Amino acid sequence: MSKYWSPIVSALKPYVPGEQPRMANLVKLNTNENPYAPSDKVIEAIRAAASADLRLYPDPLALDLRKAVAARYGVEPEEVFVGNGSDEVLAHSFAALLKHDRPLLYPDISYSFYPTYAGLFGIDAVEVPLNDAFGIDIPDYRRPAGAIILPNPNAPTGIGLPLAEIEALVAEHPDQPVVIDEAYVDFGGESASALVPKYENLLVVQTFSKSRALAGLRVGFAIGQRHLIEALERVKDSFNSYPLGRAAQAGAIAAIEDEAWFEATRGKIIASREKLTSDLKKRGFEVLPSQANFVFARHPDHAGQALAAKLRERAVIVRHFAKPRISDFLRITIGTYEECARLVAALDEIL
Amino acid sequence: MSKYWSPIVSALKPYVPGEQPRMANLVKLNTNENPYAPSDKVIEAIRAAASADLRLYPDPLALDLRKAVAARYGVEPEEVFVGNGSDEVLAHSFAALLKHDRPLLYPDISYSFYPTYAGLFGIDAVEVPLNDAFGIDIPDYRRPAGAIILPNPNAPTGIGLPLAEIEALVAEHPDQPVVIDEAYVDFGGESASALVPKYENLLVVQTFSKSRALAGLRVGFAIGQRHLIEALERVKDSFNSYPLGRAAQAGAIAAIEDEAWFEATRGKIIASREKLTSDLKKRGFEVLPSQANFVFARHPDHAGQALAAKLRERAVIVRHFAKPRISDFLRITIGTYEECARLVAALDEIL
Repeated sequence: MSKYWSPIVSALKPYVPGEQPRMANLVKLNTNENPYAPSDKVIEAIRAAASADLRLYPDPLALDLRKAVAARYGVEPEEVFVGNGSDEVLAHSFAALLKHDRPLLYPDISYSFYPTYAGLFGIDAVEVPLNDAFGIDIPDYRRPAGAIILPNPNAPTGIGLPLAEIEALVAEHPDQPVVIDEAYVDFGGESASALVPKYENLLVVQTFSKSRALAGLRVGFAIGQRHLIEALERVKDSFNSYPLGRAAQAGAIAAIEDEAWFEATRGKIIASREKLTSDLKKRGFEVLPSQANFVFARHPDHAGQALAAKLRERAVIVRHFAKPRISDFLRITIGTYEECARLVAALDEIL
Repeated sequence: MSKYWSPIVSALKPYVPGEQPRMANLVKLNTNENPYAPSDKVIEAIRAAASADLRLYPDPLALDLRKAVAARYGVEPEEVFVGNGSDEVLAHSFAALLKHDRPLLYPDISYSFYPTYAGLFGIDAVEVPLNDAFGIDIPDYRRPAGAIILPNPNAPTGIGLPLAEIEALVAEHPDQPVVIDEAYVDFGGESASALVPKYENLLVVQTFSKSRALAGLRVGFAIGQRHLIEALERVKDSFNSYPLGRAAQAGAIAAIEDEAWFEATRGKIIASREKLTSDLKKRGFEVLPSQANFVFARHPDHAGQALAAKLRERAVIVRHFAKPRISDFLRITIGTYEECARLVAALDEIL
């Protein structure tokens, strides 16, 4: 630390993203990227946006992109907020909507950026334990709360909640903002975006990084009623007016409009997930039921950290969390059919 | 406002960016964009980055880009921080380095985002008045301070300080972070980046939006000693790990490496500025001495707001600030030779 740092800096516990190794012939199953290339229409749109017009600022309102997202989800453009990846959308949500006198609630095993955001914005947070099956029990959230955030499906467990349970949570807390983080919803979950017209306290956050295969473009969005979107816009316009460049806006519009690519790609990933789940179970793994583009699995005879290290020796990288309750699990991103097969072959060598 | 908003949201005074009108045949001289297309090498690099690899996260450390910036400015990559436009770099600087028990100092007439950041992060700020010639007097900053930020050249005045005066300011406040915001320095100013090895309290912020003609790409950077860069990284990694996508990183690297384009383009803009300054003075304008890609000018017989409105009727858009001391000025971005000529022709109709 340094005398020049603001008082908050020393106390921060920054998020540690999954590593981005530069190795040849790597099977990279550690950061939940989509194994397939994005839509050709996205590539074309970005190349077209790479023009002399880059000298000009992008539309700070990103209106065309918000219109495209709104059309896809059956809401109004004023009910859509866009940002630099869903991480930035989440950060603004924490600042704008999740800081209140009573504590913010989120699951104890969940997206590990939540405690970091809470620390950055000085938000008092309570971690609500998952149940013994690593699921979220909605009745556990019946306690004094200023706001609630949870991922559906949850990460890193992959377990999803039915829409009726999400609706019960939102309805039970009419005076609290409830944020549903749907980074992985397109791989088998049910989006709560359909509930937005009915609930003034609901904000749904999604990303282009996973199901649209655009982790490298940095676009995420939120859907909610106008007073919630206005709060996000006020914070965004006090932080950075232009978080999405011209190429990002153009690419994201093309992505949201290519429904055929979207359906085909997520179908392949879901099929791979079912195959991999079956292959892992045959080899003695416990695999949590996943609605995401990853599985969370542990082997009764092999510690998680050791198993991850042995996979790494075979150029297969998965994610391991050295945390209570889940330290024996591996979070394995669903790769292509071939990548999943290489993972299974490596496991057959190790086990 | 809404009961769901965090307490801070209602009190925010969001920044209002210059408008991005969609009009044909417009002479857009209101947001200090570069009138020339970016380097062809930038366009090529972005098109190459628009590939299947967009499915993968970008390098969160942006190491190749930081190496390129470091090489250009004669510092180490660890002394470079990059972000989503210099606005995001400034926002992180306010949070990480400019919040202390004693107040932050900045000029009363300056980049209008500074008070917004101070409000967002709860920073006590004191505005130090410009002198009667609209310049910054360094001795005026000899007062109790937790930190100092000022643009060099200043905006919207365009007036620059010699490097010796910046060095005096930095040397006089060895215990306070001093941020020099050099968004416009490449149009005739002297960068303080050369002082970074000597002063542990100095942070220099620059942008690709102006002199590199990449406002639409969203890349900015800071140069400072490692302990200052570490503070920015800690805040960034508590907010958004991946603010720069793959296309942005690739384009920015190509931009920083194309020195020939850079020199030729800024030379044309400086020449246009001198010509426009002369043309405006011939028509009775007072024009502040500018080291930026804009001029700040007022006419003794025409109120600023009325003049801006009349230019607008002729499809020429400039920026007017309805603020004390400067309400009779227009901030006019330096366009191409032809755009400047159209502005002057419009003024000849009006005056």
